[in-house]
Amino acid sequence: MNIYEGMTKEELKAEKVRQEARYKAYQAQDLKLDISRGKPSKEQLDLSMPMLDTLQSDSDYFSENGLDTRNYGALTGLPEAKRLMADVMETYPENVIIFCDSSLNIMYDLVSKAYTHGIMGETPWCRLPVVRFLCPVPGYDRHFAITEYFGIEMINIPMLEDGPDMDLVEQYVNHDPTVKGIWCNPKYSNPTGTVYSDEVVRRFANLHPAAKDFRIFWDNAYNVHHLDFNKINTIPEILELSEKAGNPDIVYKFGSFSKITFSGSSIAALATSLGNIADVTSQMKIQTIGHNKINQLQHARFFKDAGAVRRHMEKHAAILKPKFDLLEETLTRELGGTGLGNWTHPEGGYFVSFNTLEGCAKAVIAKVKEAGVTMTEAGATFPYHLDPKDENIRIAPSFATREELRTALEIFTVAVKLVSIDKYLS
Amino acid sequence: MNIYEGMTKEELKAEKVRQEARYKAYQAQDLKLDISRGKPSKEQLDLSMPMLDTLQSDSDYFSENGLDTRNYGALTGLPEAKRLMADVMETYPENVIIFCDSSLNIMYDLVSKAYTHGIMGETPWCRLPVVRFLCPVPGYDRHFAITEYFGIEMINIPMLEDGPDMDLVEQYVNHDPTVKGIWCNPKYSNPTGTVYSDEVVRRFANLHPAAKDFRIFWDNAYNVHHLDFNKINTIPEILELSEKAGNPDIVYKFGSFSKITFSGSSIAALATSLGNIADVTSQMKIQTIGHNKINQLQHARFFKDAGAVRRHMEKHAAILKPKFDLLEETLTRELGGTGLGNWTHPEGGYFVSFNTLEGCAKAVIAKVKEAGVTMTEAGATFPYHLDPKDENIRIAPSFATREELRTALEIFTVAVKLVSIDKYLS
Repeated sequence: MNIYEGMTKEELKAEKVRQEARYKAYQAQDLKLDISRGKPSKEQLDLSMPMLDTLQSDSDYFSENGLDTRNYGALTGLPEAKRLMADVMETYPENVIIFCDSSLNIMYDLVSKAYTHGIMGETPWCRLPVVRFLCPVPGYDRHFAITEYFGIEMINIPMLEDGPDMDLVEQYVNHDPTVKGIWCNPKYSNPTGTVYSDEVVRRFANLHPAAKDFRIFWDNAYNVHHLDFNKINTIPEILELSEKAGNPDIVYKFGSFSKITFSGSSIAALATSLGNIADVTSQMKIQTIGHNKINQLQHARFFKDAGAVRRHMEKHAAILKPKFDLLEETLTRELGGTGLGNWTHPEGGYFVSFNTLEGCAKAVIAKVKEAGVTMTEAGATFPYHLDPKDENIRIAPSFATREELRTALEIFTVAVKLVSIDKYLS
Repeated sequence: MNIYEGMTKEELKAEKVRQEARYKAYQAQDLKLDISRGKPSKEQLDLSMPMLDTLQSDSDYFSENGLDTRNYGALTGLPEAKRLMADVMETYPENVIIFCDSSLNIMYDLVSKAYTHGIMGETPWCRLPVVRFLCPVPGYDRHFAITEYFGIEMINIPMLEDGPDMDLVEQYVNHDPTVKGIWCNPKYSNPTGTVYSDEVVRRFANLHPAAKDFRIFWDNAYNVHHLDFNKINTIPEILELSEKAGNPDIVYKFGSFSKITFSGSSIAALATSLGNIADVTSQMKIQTIGHNKINQLQHARFFKDAGAVRRHMEKHAAILKPKFDLLEETLTRELGGTGLGNWTHPEGGYFVSFNTLEGCAKAVIAKVKEAGVTMTEAGATFPYHLDPKDENIRIAPSFATREELRTALEIFTVAVKLVSIDKYLS
């Protein structure tokens, strides 16, 4: 039951007049606000500027193994970069390959390699009539874009409180050999902020895939991206669990410094079994002579270990948490108790997931846009951009200033009200 | 006619004793020398160290279009990086996409994309029974490795004095729709140092491919890598020529700073028609959020334009030319007039191509290895590592010091003599 359901037409019309007045006042300000993408703010990026000073014209440029980092070599990464990444990713350096830019590139390349050459000697996916992926929803649009691009059929899996619906996941993975993968954001999921429970992680590690070349794409993008370091969420380490379960090769785990240092100019990594490392390296050695080692050296020098990363992430949290708090306050003040929407209360990551009344999301996004607010396109959090209930909206509060965020969210709540009113007036 | 052909068995045996004595003297030194890969030397890499100072913790980090280079964005590159690259590549910024690391990655990705999704709406190569590439030989092993990896059938095209045999190229490209590409190093080719003549470039631009998705992979890796700046070789700009010929989309042109600044940690670029730019961008936007812009900004700040790059490359030449001169002197002193081998005399690039007597290349490489000298594997300059005459050897003099290079080359010439003697003794 929401506040508009019980109203008469006249009451609804009167409420519409009130909200339209507010809406028009915002429109008159000719605003240009953006809460669409999970981009760090200027203040967050400033935190990593000293990293640039770790390698200058008069610096030592040798890796700890004596390699001149300015020259070719080190296909899979510098030892100190692997050690740092392994420390952050809770695994071992020999299980890590370092890539450049961001982890999205790695995921694309792995899907592409499975498509062209297959995984560990299995049939290349381009030779199969059907390849399917499981997609917990709502989820990350760029994951779904990769699988859609390769013609991989995507199956929605409901995201529950503690992770994807594992009964459904097991049913598909353990019985359907056309199911070759699943996209996971195990901690502070994009966009719901979900933290997978120990039980869910354990069930993932203990899958018995019908397809030998099934892989869990474990995108741990927000592993150390807590909003409150007094309230850190941890999840079991899946590579170790899957090895113990006799499934050593089932997981591709991803990590990235894109939201730790510089977005899109950081280092990223794949962590996986030694078998997968050998399989992936056989492709890498054809594709590249090696990735940017200058950048790897700078990262390894700026962060000695996971402890240094943690101290750095506390500074990020100090900037981010007030924005998430402001979001929570604003939505609660404007929409709390109205029944016009519900939203998540993440303890980390970059997003809040908001559900409107059924059939309202697209109209809300259009409405805020006409008032100068850019939000993630409705439907983007679902495969094929098809949100079956047209209700989910992703909110990204990180990039805007607090003032901009407050205004954008107020406009958003007014839009939610106006679209909800129209639902009952029409 | 070579010096050993006319000798008696006894004379040959006596010569063998002499050369073996020299060979053993080298072996006794327990050397470890490497003239296998086209790696810049320490002194060359030192030239670019000041680039690291162009972006420090207190620097302005905005691109000229106001973009914060530390954040996401600029999928196809920063405007100043495109302008610099276009200037060096003799084309326009709008025809350029900036990538990271090195140009090999770009070539791989373009072949991979053609294989998975096709070029400009044509059938993906993975759906075709046969795809073929023309490979001027001897050529670059990493080019051939990419096409071999994708199961693309490679056809040898003899490299003549002024470029590939264009009669043969035209015959294949203009009549065989399974021929989808050709690998070209148009200036200072790897390994022959060949500079394509104006006529050859013109004929490339005027091809009439039987396949709509035929592309010339124009890897202009050594465009500004002259050994003597009083003797600069220029070739016609093929993108402009091909557009004038009504073939605007026929060329993928590649450029890289890997042998200008830091190898494998530089910026690289694709220059091509606007049609191809749109086609490639449709894939890039799925694969990545964008490449390392910090690195792009550093390059653009360190080099204002092609003039600055030229002045920088003159310093590279001052380091490289004495090594190529030493190579020429040593080979001439030891093998000149013997008829036991012939070699190229490049005016730029990183390599010298050496031909032994027929059937001797593999044995020579094995021989130098036993004396501690690593050279590029025999056969590497041919598709499938199959040198039909077993005669071609690539020499890379850039990385070694002059002293190391002198010793390695002396050992090489002794090995050439020993293997040649055995050819006539057996």
